[in-house]
Amino acid sequence: MIRLFVPDALAAGAPVVPDSDQCRYLIAVMRLAVGSEILLFNGRDGEWRATVVEADKRRARLLVGARQRAHAASPDLTLAVALVKRARLETIIEKATELGVARIQLLITRRTNADHTNVARLQAIATEAAEQTGRLDVPVVLEPVKLARWLDSWNQEAGRLMVCDETGGPPALGALAPHAGKTLPWSILIGPEGGFDPEELDRLRAEPFVAAVSLGPRILRADTAAIAALSLWQAALGDWVTAS
Amino acid sequence: MIRLFVPDALAAGAPVVPDSDQCRYLIAVMRLAVGSEILLFNGRDGEWRATVVEADKRRARLLVGARQRAHAASPDLTLAVALVKRARLETIIEKATELGVARIQLLITRRTNADHTNVARLQAIATEAAEQTGRLDVPVVLEPVKLARWLDSWNQEAGRLMVCDETGGPPALGALAPHAGKTLPWSILIGPEGGFDPEELDRLRAEPFVAAVSLGPRILRADTAAIAALSLWQAALGDWVTAS
Repeated sequence: MIRLFVPDALAAGAPVVPDSDQCRYLIAVMRLAVGSEILLFNGRDGEWRATVVEADKRRARLLVGARQRAHAASPDLTLAVALVKRARLETIIEKATELGVARIQLLITRRTNADHTNVARLQAIATEAAEQTGRLDVPVVLEPVKLARWLDSWNQEAGRLMVCDETGGPPALGALAPHAGKTLPWSILIGPEGGFDPEELDRLRAEPFVAAVSLGPRILRADTAAIAALSLWQAALGDWVTAS
Repeated sequence: MIRLFVPDALAAGAPVVPDSDQCRYLIAVMRLAVGSEILLFNGRDGEWRATVVEADKRRARLLVGARQRAHAASPDLTLAVALVKRARLETIIEKATELGVARIQLLITRRTNADHTNVARLQAIATEAAEQTGRLDVPVVLEPVKLARWLDSWNQEAGRLMVCDETGGPPALGALAPHAGKTLPWSILIGPEGGFDPEELDRLRAEPFVAAVSLGPRILRADTAAIAALSLWQAALGDWVTAS
């Protein structure tokens, strides 16, 4: 069944008017008619059935029915990723959403070739991926900041940071294992195509909140490394730990 | 440094003539000239330095120098994957190569929409990914066979099969952990976009060599599931277990 993220409060009997892109998708692309059912979620109230009660090309209206699932927050996991090339960055946003991150922090590092990107477009990719992957919330994509400034602002509440270090280190899974059962926030840092600069690596390794780890003996592209690291984290500390 | 896979035997002083595509790449694209050095590997003899000794647009010749790395075989890991849509299948081949599989078995399942694919093209993608990821061998891409026939031919030497079951199951990492330190061959099975048919799932779950596992509560696309499962396997049983 089609799932849509909407900003509206969701409760039985509430009317919802999707935005114009969503209306076009529902009516022109998916050919929904009055009486069709879809699912709605807003990141706060869980997942609800909703029935199409008006179906124009320009305007659709939905009426919220029964709640399907109670809200459940995603694990407090941040993917911090350097601005890699656009196609690969878009893949990373899509995959990180499927893998259940709470937020994506875009970063500028010394070897990053860009200093800005279309964050609204990346947020739209995250929203679409959240709709398709069955999540009850959408990860927030945060404007790019410089790596050094991001590290400067680290505090006790920011939890721990796993750095995927292509120059080697202890195995990622072994570094995560001692933290099983605790509910600290975590971030996972993925560098740019050219890797981190040696000074950046020195600083990262020296920070008390950092675990610099290895993802094996082969060179991984940024998108592969991001998916691998997020999967290991979910399997060791996140919501893949319990059977589903 | 550029790395090329060649079929030739590699030993100090041996001449190597790359094929015409490789010559075009080396001379026309990468602008190598006489005296330039590259790395060669053939899946048997390790990695060797080689010097360009003839550099024509149509023909290049290399002379093998010193060995850089001794040969090391990849773990005995097979990715068995249904014929999903072409772009996603190509991503899976590239990523599986980065993640160190020994072979990729293409499969036709009941809900697979295709019964053939361009295996030579997929093999070329695997070769290019192997060159870039620093592997010493290239995974073999095997012609598609029907899932039922592939399972019929299973025997003791084929080892164990991890099935990513989107209908739920025990956590993948917990299912792998008891096998740490053993050197059994493993395969990882990824189904088509529409999932496995219920009869296929029943058979898979009943086979004594199968571990049907969950990759968490969200719906993963085939490429995400493949990368996640291969990463967990490498981290739990493969060559990510030791520091690098």
